[in-house]
Amino acid sequence: MGTVTKGPQQDRSRATRLRLLEAAIACLAEHGWSGSTVSLVATRAGVSRGAAQHHFPTREDLFTAAVEYVAEQRSAALREALDPVRGVVGPARTYLVVRELVGVYTGPLFRAALHLWVAAADEERLRAGVTDLEARVGRETHRMAVELLGADETRPGVRETVQGLLDMARGLGLANLLTDDSARRERVVDHWAGLLDDVLRG
Amino acid sequence: MGTVTKGPQQDRSRATRLRLLEAAIACLAEHGWSGSTVSLVATRAGVSRGAAQHHFPTREDLFTAAVEYVAEQRSAALREALDPVRGVVGPARTYLVVRELVGVYTGPLFRAALHLWVAAADEERLRAGVTDLEARVGRETHRMAVELLGADETRPGVRETVQGLLDMARGLGLANLLTDDSARRERVVDHWAGLLDDVLRG
Repeated sequence: MGTVTKGPQQDRSRATRLRLLEAAIACLAEHGWSGSTVSLVATRAGVSRGAAQHHFPTREDLFTAAVEYVAEQRSAALREALDPVRGVVGPARTYLVVRELVGVYTGPLFRAALHLWVAAADEERLRAGVTDLEARVGRETHRMAVELLGADETRPGVRETVQGLLDMARGLGLANLLTDDSARRERVVDHWAGLLDDVLRG
Repeated sequence: MGTVTKGPQQDRSRATRLRLLEAAIACLAEHGWSGSTVSLVATRAGVSRGAAQHHFPTREDLFTAAVEYVAEQRSAALREALDPVRGVVGPARTYLVVRELVGVYTGPLFRAALHLWVAAADEERLRAGVTDLEARVGRETHRMAVELLGADETRPGVRETVQGLLDMARGLGLANLLTDDSARRERVVDHWAGLLDDVLRG
């Protein structure tokens, strides 16, 4: 009997955990760190306080897990967006890499990450975890960009070229926070993909 | 007598107003919109609730003024950083424009603006004011960048080149939020100023 019910129980437990993580991110966005208690997150997730504390004994445990969850989702989104580009060659590939990278930075996961960064900037207990995971996501993004752009980082300046591109993608994400910036963004992406292609080939 | 005391009274009133605006921004950063009441801001500023309500009858009045205050300070900082560049010519000028623009986006005023944007993204009552002022600061920054870079926007792609540069500056500001990113940033600025100079002259 134990083995028969184990699956569904684990599924329920996992689903509860996910609901708590998503509620934690939404709560942080709305109420900031000081207003984001385990009780409030549990209420929002429709989970009892006891069940929430079973999964996450402290507020730090809950938000550290929420930060990891966002980072994992961002990595997965990045791979999913960039993998199809492998089949394309030439300037069209450069354009697609830039477009998909910028796409990852302008989506809902970037918004969630942005809320975490801003909260972490003012809250010591969040900062270390957020900074480490951000560095990890950053390195992974850089590695994928270098590989897919066919950028030769042994040439002087190529590393900085790719880094500047990722900074631009991050800035485009920020510009999209309050208004739909997609029309302007498309023109910038289109133009800078061309510049980038010249620089990397030149 | 009235005219004799008027000056100091006005000074005091202005000083109180400024303290309230600065406390409002700090409060929003720490407690989010939902936790940022006029009472809390007044306490933080060391001002009575009555005096706070004399200056700002509603929470919307207070935060709209705080948003304007940050926008004005950002404009002033921008002019102050860029004006000395007028005396420089050639590639050195391009480098200085890029460095000073990025400097404005990585300073404490950008951090304050970032907190306002993130709060406004989730709070309807802040969004319109923040979006309008952000658009105004953005246009002013673009205009100054075009002028100081000597960029000819009638040439195809030049407008997008400058826009992409400002997006990159914004992204570099974000990268500096959690850690001191200055060493990496200097290399990116140095390299991209060279690329930009080639593109604008080429």
